[in-house]
Amino acid sequence: MSFTSRQAIRLSDGRELIYFNEEKQSDRAKYADTRHLPPPPPTSQLRYDPLVDEWVAVAAHRQTRTFLPPSDACPLCPSTPSFASEIPAPDYDVVVFENQFPSFSDRIKPDEVTSLTELVPVRAGIGRCEVICFTSDHNGSFGKLAPSRVRTVVDVLADRTTEMSAITGVAQVFPFENRGVEIGVTLHHPHGQIYAYPTVPPRTQQMLRAAGRYRDRTGRDLYTDVLAAERKAGVRVIAENEHWTAYVPAASRWPYEVQVAPHRKVPDLPALSGEERDAFGPLYLDVLRRFDALFGKPMPYISAWHQAVVGEGRELGYLHLQLFSIRRAADKLKYLAGSESAMGAFVNDIVPEKAAETLRAL
Amino acid sequence: MSFTSRQAIRLSDGRELIYFNEEKQSDRAKYADTRHLPPPPPTSQLRYDPLVDEWVAVAAHRQTRTFLPPSDACPLCPSTPSFASEIPAPDYDVVVFENQFPSFSDRIKPDEVTSLTELVPVRAGIGRCEVICFTSDHNGSFGKLAPSRVRTVVDVLADRTTEMSAITGVAQVFPFENRGVEIGVTLHHPHGQIYAYPTVPPRTQQMLRAAGRYRDRTGRDLYTDVLAAERKAGVRVIAENEHWTAYVPAASRWPYEVQVAPHRKVPDLPALSGEERDAFGPLYLDVLRRFDALFGKPMPYISAWHQAVVGEGRELGYLHLQLFSIRRAADKLKYLAGSESAMGAFVNDIVPEKAAETLRAL
Repeated sequence: MSFTSRQAIRLSDGRELIYFNEEKQSDRAKYADTRHLPPPPPTSQLRYDPLVDEWVAVAAHRQTRTFLPPSDACPLCPSTPSFASEIPAPDYDVVVFENQFPSFSDRIKPDEVTSLTELVPVRAGIGRCEVICFTSDHNGSFGKLAPSRVRTVVDVLADRTTEMSAITGVAQVFPFENRGVEIGVTLHHPHGQIYAYPTVPPRTQQMLRAAGRYRDRTGRDLYTDVLAAERKAGVRVIAENEHWTAYVPAASRWPYEVQVAPHRKVPDLPALSGEERDAFGPLYLDVLRRFDALFGKPMPYISAWHQAVVGEGRELGYLHLQLFSIRRAADKLKYLAGSESAMGAFVNDIVPEKAAETLRAL
Repeated sequence: MSFTSRQAIRLSDGRELIYFNEEKQSDRAKYADTRHLPPPPPTSQLRYDPLVDEWVAVAAHRQTRTFLPPSDACPLCPSTPSFASEIPAPDYDVVVFENQFPSFSDRIKPDEVTSLTELVPVRAGIGRCEVICFTSDHNGSFGKLAPSRVRTVVDVLADRTTEMSAITGVAQVFPFENRGVEIGVTLHHPHGQIYAYPTVPPRTQQMLRAAGRYRDRTGRDLYTDVLAAERKAGVRVIAENEHWTAYVPAASRWPYEVQVAPHRKVPDLPALSGEERDAFGPLYLDVLRRFDALFGKPMPYISAWHQAVVGEGRELGYLHLQLFSIRRAADKLKYLAGSESAMGAFVNDIVPEKAAETLRAL
């Protein structure tokens, strides 16, 4: 299954919303947004931190974003006669729309850029932030989706990656899902987000540097060799099929971390073949079920698609999904305290081989 | 005030404990540890993550560490006739001891090192982790210490920095305090920690690269210029005295972040003069009081001393304290979700100038 039609509308404040319909169905676009929303907030700023050579986004308007609303006021459910949500139609399969409280936006003028001090240049936070709803079922979860719906989601993320990569100034497109209040999720409805960053994020910069040095030294591709080594070692592999392998990285930072990678090197989701897209869902759903079975309750997690950058260094990118949880025991979370938050030095309490063994046995 | 005597003993499992006594007093060392503790756990491993060129510590034994014990079983209180804590004496001023659940330790043989795969080298987690108790008062906090006690603490941290920097293989000594269950603190008694890292932590590596490039380009010291720019701009300065300035960094990552820096460039705590040490307490206590006043309740925070590295790049280090909180509103925390945790890209909801204005006005 995938989407067979794609219908874009504008919400009352001008934001774009796109229905991705699994069945040929053309009436969703007819529902108008009946709300009178305020104009979009001022954009965020990017400020350069000279001490660590990184850009930090400052998005003050996000402070007022919707915070754990009651379920009859969920902005991600379809609209009903009594409540107008973000989605005007009475039903949807997969829907994507611009975030009302974006960290980055492409609706601002570059000439608003000002400089803070000579050492701290400021740029406008050009880019785009979208929300993706995986299902209209408020009480569902990604792990409970049918494999056919996962295929649709992959196709939608590929569509969004292609479109958002084309925005002038976008450096990388990052689809991700935060799941669970322990992770800071402010809306329970199953959803993910897509960030189009105006700068290459710090972790990606690190990955590019590491992959570039490895290529210079060996002439080979780093992620290809890491994946081959893990498949050969086997001890940290959780599950695999013809096109994908899920494994616990040997140097995991998080108590439970799994990377899901395609066997063929592709830069991003749009480059996946139909067969590869079909094969992803069953494997990933299997891993998610193991996560939830670990402690017998929904596992809080972050699921992150690492894709190639849009510009320089694109050839170094190897698409992979990074899934990790901060839960280290049934009643304990891993906190990022002094060593991790102030020094970036991670201390993991769970031995990766043990994590893999536990996940495999479930 | 500082410590006038220093008495080291061994706990029953061989770990070192040092009393730093403000008044000449020599009887604390006579109290023996009456517990029969198991031998120290196996050391942690350092595993190299080739994808991002970073070392990750894996310390499985930490999973069983003490977790929020009742107050009559606090391992950081002085021992009583009915409970033998980590500190055998019936009272103390400031005390330091080796962590029972260390992320790094210097009590292991280097020949235990094994290799995981060619791409993921493994090293023994050589180093040292100490706990420092700021006061014997279980219900106190750092912010409630007398300035004279803060001076003692600074002197103790300087003592520990000198000693731990001398351990073979130690790359950097990092004193820090985690405060609040929201940060993941597992013991309520006011205490901090000191890590002696076997590798230069990722954030320090970034700072060294940035400072090195700046020096190559301008011949000047980066932190000196950043501090001068902040003092000149003034808008983000919270408080200052003759020797120190406390300011909100222009590109703060955290909702409330303050850096406290000496006006004179020194590499680490041992290099501070007596006057500088005396002047630190009043200023830092003022900042901590503003933090707690922000939302009318104890602010969860991480307080981190950034010191020069022991080896190469030492001349680039400029001692400063980084204090930050994850609380972004009275009832809301800043979570490190997808963008921060998976990409290292921070989005801050609070404009640094507003944070400074609020903190100054309290």
